[in-house]
Amino acid sequence: MLIKVFVTPRKGILDPQGRAVEHSLKSLGFKGVSGVKIGKYIVLEVAAKSAADARDQAHKMCERLLANPLIEDYTFEVEGE
Amino acid sequence: MLIKVFVTPRKGILDPQGRAVEHSLKSLGFKGVSGVKIGKYIVLEVAAKSAADARDQAHKMCERLLANPLIEDYTFEVEGE
Repeated sequence: MLIKVFVTPRKGILDPQGRAVEHSLKSLGFKGVSGVKIGKYIVLEVAAKSAADARDQAHKMCERLLANPLIEDYTFEVEGE
Repeated sequence: MLIKVFVTPRKGILDPQGRAVEHSLKSLGFKGVSGVKIGKYIVLEVAAKSAADARDQAHKMCERLLANPLIEDYTFEVEGE
């Protein structure tokens, strides 16, 4: 099953990359841009017995490797649920 | 309006970060994992007159700054469309 994971910097955590991109977008003429946050988008295929099993694996992967829960939030989707 | 942009390495382009994460996931016991791809997830707020205007701005931002079309693919969603 296909799993898509979205990792973002937690609220209140500095996001220098996001600030740099926001500044660049404004320089390029996109004056109405605000609140730019840059995170990771991870796509992977997993062998799972069911959607519930895939979700369980995805949750564990996020907690153990894909996100740092101290400074990042994550969500994920299991395709075909 | 809220825009979510998903940038991924293009098919056929080396993704060393994805390979490293796949290797690590397997070492952690997630044996059924394959095809790990790591990209960027960008969230931003934009002042737009309509959803069509927001989509148009998002498209231009991707082409001009957020993605490198030579080596990356992108998709985006406008929230509330």
